[in-house]
Amino acid sequence: MNRYWSKSIAGLDPYTPGEQPQDHAYIKLNTNENPYPPSPAIAKVIRDYEIDQLRRYPDPESSALIESLAAYQGVDRNQVFVGNGSDEVLAHAFQAFFRQDYPILFPDISYSFYPVYCKLYQIDYQQPALDEAFCINIQDYASSNGGIIIPNPNAPTGIALETGAIRELLADNPESVVIIDEAYVDYGAESACQLIPEFPNLLVVQTFSKSRSLAGLRLGYALGHEDLIEALQRVKNSFNSYPINRLTSAIAMAAIADEDYFQDCRKRVIASRERLSTELQRLGFEVFPSSSNFVLVRHPGHAAESLYSELKASGILVRYFNKARIDNCVRISIGSDDECNALIAALSEIIG
Amino acid sequence: MNRYWSKSIAGLDPYTPGEQPQDHAYIKLNTNENPYPPSPAIAKVIRDYEIDQLRRYPDPESSALIESLAAYQGVDRNQVFVGNGSDEVLAHAFQAFFRQDYPILFPDISYSFYPVYCKLYQIDYQQPALDEAFCINIQDYASSNGGIIIPNPNAPTGIALETGAIRELLADNPESVVIIDEAYVDYGAESACQLIPEFPNLLVVQTFSKSRSLAGLRLGYALGHEDLIEALQRVKNSFNSYPINRLTSAIAMAAIADEDYFQDCRKRVIASRERLSTELQRLGFEVFPSSSNFVLVRHPGHAAESLYSELKASGILVRYFNKARIDNCVRISIGSDDECNALIAALSEIIG
Repeated sequence: MNRYWSKSIAGLDPYTPGEQPQDHAYIKLNTNENPYPPSPAIAKVIRDYEIDQLRRYPDPESSALIESLAAYQGVDRNQVFVGNGSDEVLAHAFQAFFRQDYPILFPDISYSFYPVYCKLYQIDYQQPALDEAFCINIQDYASSNGGIIIPNPNAPTGIALETGAIRELLADNPESVVIIDEAYVDYGAESACQLIPEFPNLLVVQTFSKSRSLAGLRLGYALGHEDLIEALQRVKNSFNSYPINRLTSAIAMAAIADEDYFQDCRKRVIASRERLSTELQRLGFEVFPSSSNFVLVRHPGHAAESLYSELKASGILVRYFNKARIDNCVRISIGSDDECNALIAALSEIIG
Repeated sequence: MNRYWSKSIAGLDPYTPGEQPQDHAYIKLNTNENPYPPSPAIAKVIRDYEIDQLRRYPDPESSALIESLAAYQGVDRNQVFVGNGSDEVLAHAFQAFFRQDYPILFPDISYSFYPVYCKLYQIDYQQPALDEAFCINIQDYASSNGGIIIPNPNAPTGIALETGAIRELLADNPESVVIIDEAYVDYGAESACQLIPEFPNLLVVQTFSKSRSLAGLRLGYALGHEDLIEALQRVKNSFNSYPINRLTSAIAMAAIADEDYFQDCRKRVIASRERLSTELQRLGFEVFPSSSNFVLVRHPGHAAESLYSELKASGILVRYFNKARIDNCVRISIGSDDECNALIAALSEIIG
């Protein structure tokens, strides 16, 4: 460790994002990006943007954007928090809620950023195991805990919980904040948003990166009781007064306004997922039932790591996690139909 | 305190940014924004931007932007760190370097975000007092400390340190990271950048918000020894893999490339500052010698708080800090010549 570092820095275990090759040469099915461009309304926003506005700081409260999200989601404006990507929102939430006497809980197979945040904020955690079918068992979350975070649908499994199970989780844990990380919710799961009036311990986190085709924009948000939102604001205002840049707010509001386009893209991805799942099964893959924009698959006759490497060699990136229980799986993002066809062709070749 | 909050949250003392009225009705001389628009090259970047790129995550390393900054500043690419505004860069730096056994040091009159970061990361601090002329005395920073941060020029005084004094500070404190916060450096101070090869404990922080006219974009960066940059990357990669959005990188690179425009705006602001200072002195104000894009002033016959209120009533926003030692001062950002003239007219009226 360098003598100038704070003591905790050497012990950090930073997150490794999926490969982002900058040359665009690959068919990129590794980071769950949307195969379709963002709403055409955004092109107009950008084209007409008066750059003189950029010399001013943004509204530190992002009021217009927050009002737009509140109206869209049917909540009050003081029940909405925005951040520079849902990763930032999650980071603030870990700091705001999860530094407690008991460890927090999240599934053993889940978003791999959660243990990274725990190291950053020195939070203890336990990881109840998914069952053999990679499903979450709500009963595993009944012990004393300092908080719970569950992606719904879960990643990288793609498997969703029903709202009834989430309600049970919230009711069983009235002393803990329960974060439902809904990065992929628009592809088949039901949002826990509807439970916000009932449960002051619920925080729902969503993102513009997936179903809004705006991963490059960096915008995420949280919805929940105003007391939870206040804690997030206290952290944010102790960290960075203006996390959302002016163009980002303008673009995001245009995306929210174009509901038809959003619904259309969402449904196209779902339809492609169903087609792709069928074809993968035809090739002998086990496909976990996905409610998201990716499928987790494994093949009885082919090691996941070599599938990943052979696909990469043929110009297709998928995600391989070198981790217990899922090291025999690859996660494949749903591409356009052409990309899905190219994947199937390459896999047919590999599997022969 | 809400029962769901982490214990530290209620004790936070969030930063209060200057007013950002969203209706644009004021002559806004309160948050040190640039009176001139960003480089016209940016308009072209935005107009030509292919929105399809936004569906992809950014390069998590922001490599192209970092290379562009490294070339501009004459350092290696592994000596550059970028963040979502220099406030984010500073937050990460406090966490990465300042959690030490001894308190950190910064001036009693300085950027008011520093004590906020200290609360967030539970860092002890001491604040050596500026002298009567509001100058920093380097000898006050010789005690055992866990780090030092000094804005150069200082804010809200506008007064700069010479490079010789910074060299002395670095040499006196070989065991501490010394952060020189150069948000305003382009308006008359000399950058400590040139000392980076000599001092492995130096971190220089700069921003696009002021001299680049891009406060609305949110981009800041740090320059220093690669071991310091590595610590910042470890924190960043434990917090948010992709803090810089794609449009921001593209716009910032266009700004860096337009050196003539940058120099021209910078010089115009300096010339306006000198004119404004003279006129304020003519009205009886004491004007602290500024090397930045604002002036700190006080008037023997008029309370600062009422000057602030009366100016606001006449449509001009300046910054008033209700804080010991500077509660008899207002800070005035340098506007366009028209804005400066309007300010002088309003003050002449008020002072009579």
